Amino acid sequence: MLTKEENALVTRTDAGTPMGEAMRRYWMPALLSEELPAPDGPPVRVRLLGEDLVAFRDSAGRVGLLAQKCPHRGASLFFGRNEEQGLRCVYHGWKFDVDGFCVDMPNEPPESSFKHKIRQTAYPCHEQGGVVWTYMGPSENRPPVPGLEWVRAPAGHLHISKTFEDCNYLQGIEGGVDSSHSSFLHRRFDDGYATRATENLRVRATAPKLEVEPTDYGYRYASIRHLSGEGKSYVRVYQFVMPFHQMRAYEGYVGRPVIQGHMWVPIDDDHHWVYNWIYTKDSVPLTEEEIRLEGVITGRAPEDLLPGFRLKKSLANDYLIDRENQRTRSFTGIEGVNTQDMAVQESMGPIYDRSQEHLGTSDLAVIAMRRLLIQAARDVEAGRDPLGAVSSCDAVRPAEMVLPEGVAWSEAMQEDLIARW
Amino acid sequence: MLTKEENALVTRTDAGTPMGEAMRRYWMPALLSEELPAPDGPPVRVRLLGEDLVAFRDSAGRVGLLAQKCPHRGASLFFGRNEEQGLRCVYHGWKFDVDGFCVDMPNEPPESSFKHKIRQTAYPCHEQGGVVWTYMGPSENRPPVPGLEWVRAPAGHLHISKTFEDCNYLQGIEGGVDSSHSSFLHRRFDDGYATRATENLRVRATAPKLEVEPTDYGYRYASIRHLSGEGKSYVRVYQFVMPFHQMRAYEGYVGRPVIQGHMWVPIDDDHHWVYNWIYTKDSVPLTEEEIRLEGVITGRAPEDLLPGFRLKKSLANDYLIDRENQRTRSFTGIEGVNTQDMAVQESMGPIYDRSQEHLGTSDLAVIAMRRLLIQAARDVEAGRDPLGAVSSCDAVRPAEMVLPEGVAWSEAMQEDLIARW
Amino acid sequence: MLTKEENALVTRTDAGTPMGEAMRRYWMPALLSEELPAPDGPPVRVRLLGEDLVAFRDSAGRVGLLAQKCPHRGASLFFGRNEEQGLRCVYHGWKFDVDGFCVDMPNEPPESSFKHKIRQTAYPCHEQGGVVWTYMGPSENRPPVPGLEWVRAPAGHLHISKTFEDCNYLQGIEGGVDSSHSSFLHRRFDDGYATRATENLRVRATAPKLEVEPTDYGYRYASIRHLSGEGKSYVRVYQFVMPFHQMRAYEGYVGRPVIQGHMWVPIDDDHHWVYNWIYTKDSVPLTEEEIRLEGVITGRAPEDLLPGFRLKKSLANDYLIDRENQRTRSFTGIEGVNTQDMAVQESMGPIYDRSQEHLGTSDLAVIAMRRLLIQAARDVEAGRDPLGAVSSCDAVRPAEMVLPEGVAWSEAMQEDLIARW
Repeated sequence: MLTKEENALVTRTDAGTPMGEAMRRYWMPALLSEELPAPDGPPVRVRLLGEDLVAFRDSAGRVGLLAQKCPHRGASLFFGRNEEQGLRCVYHGWKFDVDGFCVDMPNEPPESSFKHKIRQTAYPCHEQGGVVWTYMGPSENRPPVPGLEWVRAPAGHLHISKTFEDCNYLQGIEGGVDSSHSSFLHRRFDDGYATRATENLRVRATAPKLEVEPTDYGYRYASIRHLSGEGKSYVRVYQFVMPFHQMRAYEGYVGRPVIQGHMWVPIDDDHHWVYNWIYTKDSVPLTEEEIRLEGVITGRAPEDLLPGFRLKKSLANDYLIDRENQRTRSFTGIEGVNTQDMAVQESMGPIYDRSQEHLGTSDLAVIAMRRLLIQAARDVEAGRDPLGAVSSCDAVRPAEMVLPEGVAWSEAMQEDLIARW
Repeated sequence: MLTKEENALVTRTDAGTPMGEAMRRYWMPALLSEELPAPDGPPVRVRLLGEDLVAFRDSAGRVGLLAQKCPHRGASLFFGRNEEQGLRCVYHGWKFDVDGFCVDMPNEPPESSFKHKIRQTAYPCHEQGGVVWTYMGPSENRPPVPGLEWVRAPAGHLHISKTFEDCNYLQGIEGGVDSSHSSFLHRRFDDGYATRATENLRVRATAPKLEVEPTDYGYRYASIRHLSGEGKSYVRVYQFVMPFHQMRAYEGYVGRPVIQGHMWVPIDDDHHWVYNWIYTKDSVPLTEEEIRLEGVITGRAPEDLLPGFRLKKSLANDYLIDRENQRTRSFTGIEGVNTQDMAVQESMGPIYDRSQEHLGTSDLAVIAMRRLLIQAARDVEAGRDPLGAVSSCDAVRPAEMVLPEGVAWSEAMQEDLIARW
Repeated sequence: MLTKEENALVTRTDAGTPMGEAMRRYWMPALLSEELPAPDGPPVRVRLLGEDLVAFRDSAGRVGLLAQKCPHRGASLFFGRNEEQGLRCVYHGWKFDVDGFCVDMPNEPPESSFKHKIRQTAYPCHEQGGVVWTYMGPSENRPPVPGLEWVRAPAGHLHISKTFEDCNYLQGIEGGVDSSHSSFLHRRFDDGYATRATENLRVRATAPKLEVEPTDYGYRYASIRHLSGEGKSYVRVYQFVMPFHQMRAYEGYVGRPVIQGHMWVPIDDDHHWVYNWIYTKDSVPLTEEEIRLEGVITGRAPEDLLPGFRLKKSLANDYLIDRENQRTRSFTGIEGVNTQDMAVQESMGPIYDRSQEHLGTSDLAVIAMRRLLIQAARDVEAGRDPLGAVSSCDAVRPAEMVLPEGVAWSEAMQEDLIARW
């Protein structure tokens, strides 16, 4: 349970709010690289932490991320002309480069020095892992670009996508770090994709024991399921990297072991982007069939999508719940693993009031994650660096394994928990 | 006219408001029984007095009405599995019975006593007359279930339906207890359904004299129309039962005498349900043709409806007003008697500002109704029982009659004003 | 730049606000005459300065403009019956004439004097130039009806239309009095409508020098473009008439010289009407082909329109921007000169925050216009008449001309700046 004050603190991320200022101390995904496929192509609207921005790729291939309203009289630069190393406003022709400098102001006399006084808000960008990353905080605090393993995975080994979600970002993270829901929300009665061996283990033991270990990048936690009668436990070690990254291993997800995870990135207080990534641990790149399968399983296949990275299934159409399916084939009656996540998360409302909740032992990871975020907000307010902003997560990797009872997972899985890419 | 303060008092019904607390002292319709046709069938969303609820019929046929958000982490129980005597949340598998007890919590260890500490908000339900009634107030104040005659009418004699209306409930009641509008809003120039003999009487005398008599359940009032040149008056006695019931007799409505009426039930401050009932006074059940005719006359025939008990005709499409029809066939140019009511009531805005109105003698019943509601709100605030909550309305029945001048209606109609079912 | 306070002052026009009270001191267009084509025809909803009104043409052809909610119990008079010299509410039959007097109240006893106590808000109307003008201010301050030249232009010489715009009115005026944007926003790379000779001049010299001359009706201003190498300047003299009229000459607009302009009229703080007029200076009436061409050029041809004077192209569909068109054929990639205006103006948001802007020398006319409006608001607050409310603009006309350098435009163009109709 959070007080109403804590709930407001952790869910509000506009500029000037404590959590918003903390979020601005980390590199964040602004959009997918594929959204800006070519130099001098069409600009793209971006909304992040409640700020309206526009992204464009300039003639040299660099990405600019500018405040969307022209500093002259406020017209949207989205309608701008992306031409010769800059984005030109169509209203009066002012032109800006990726750093926000006004490089042309043709409606003022040539001798005017006015343009040198204009600097549009521009956030630095960095492209890696299929993502345009940006940093929206004070320049003196800018950390190194993120060193997550999946970001470094070789071309062809990584697949990344994004999905619009119609609620506060925290509901997304909570679903992600919540281990026990996979025994219910994603359960199937038919053989669905049950070739995924570990899924059956999660259904067999529905009340996992959680162990949370704080780290300097966030925490790792083990979800331990006792397999009765076998003298064994199924242990899944998740990684939570501040402020919104989650990683987990998945033995048979698309037919072989992979690592996958999400980022839940605030668009504004009532909406967020879910970035979905998957990469292989072995030397064989992801096949087209594996990527197709990932889309089908998660509910993000091409036929599931509307423009703007939105799902056709939504709260407005009850996610096309099928009560007969719910009775006989799947726990929810909703198809698509991540569509199921959205259904419950969005059904909590735009910003869930956590003063109404009742948390149990299965919610330890959720509780730990909130504490870290609240502490980060308070640290930044107090002039301190927030957790994980300046520390490395280069070596972080999740893992899962079936272990004999009595064996310590941190020792037995030590090697598996080290990044190899 | 009401002051702005009185207007806010009488129109706001969320929990904690004076009128909201008064409303919660009466049994209220939550939904139609037919919305939950079978045990273990799909749950149904219900919104009542600003509260989001979910209704379900359990394996034994009992109806549960629970707060919609799961007490664990807030997922909507609407997506829940209705199975073996309870509704199970799809997020983590918590299961609740119709009384709100948590009867299973499979994501916590079997030895945990946590589930015994959880009690979901659950309102008692009672089914009668095709309606699931609920009581949302303090248990120590729970009155007997409502004893209205139509609720007791034998199977086959009663027809009930409901319609969504896009404005505050008070605008609905005002239209209902307002006698004089029937001379205008519902007038026809063609012979429409003018087989309804008394309708012509209402058109003949457009300025009725109203007599309001307070009772211990609300009031009854006579709308007296002098039929000039005949030495007679057409007297219609309506019943208003607190807090939102209205009853009237209708001699030729669907070809024979019936009694009909409405309940106007707050969904929230800006929306309400209109329940529409009709029953026969004689021993012959309603025929399918009579029920069909009722739908056509009122504008609620199957072809008039959208899903969710909404009318296709709405403010957004100007109720498909036809100005040529208005010139030659009906007073409004809008077809459907109750669609005409909705048109004027919704056109007043979400919550009409009654400090702007100008009331005349024809508005006596409206004035009386508001006074009773405001008094009820103040009574509950002061710790008193509101009018009608604990008194009986078992014997209440409306009537209409043409009487010679000088005859007292209360005597002449005495027998007709007593319930017989 | 405006302070946030000034910005609120100049953009808010509801009753009781300083700018709203100032606006109410001028005659304003309420709707087009063609919207009320015949006596006793259907009433029309009108929203103006945040007030909901209804317009109707009575049996004698007079236009009434009444508050929309019936003074009895608030039903919308839009659904009313327009019959025999008045508009009758369909709820209880109250009937009002164009002056707001209640001329029939049939649901009250014939002997009642109640109807004489009822007076519905009614604004005086005046029809001229295809427009129904209204005055919404105190009757003791009512000025003469507007004497603009276009309003007096003979039948057949004037064409007028209106368009809904989805933002505050001030963004519309700013675009209108902004001379330099025409060198950019409306530029074409193909020969589009470049038969319009002066358009090429505007593209040749993109940094006009502005000279603003205050007048007793507003101001006139010259936009002077030096044509390098020719020893000449292209001078365009615009007229701004308080509070929202703008006029400009256009030499080759539809193939011959015309005068055209706009009025930007607040619907409410977030929306406004753009009235678009055009008239000929010579003795030949506008041809159908010229009117058709005006629609095509501006983006208001019949195929561009939705019901309610709305454009199909909108912010929701990015004005159907075509990036290939933007690269090769037009500066914006958006077709329709006034659609281009809407795109930038609406993209500034519902009410643009002018504390964020950076104005240059090209914005002198914008600055001057705002100062006049703010001064008008303060004058009315202080009990003074606002500029232009009581002075004549009968003689005002705009002009454009190519002049040798060193010649004073105010002398050279003196004759051209005098109205002839």
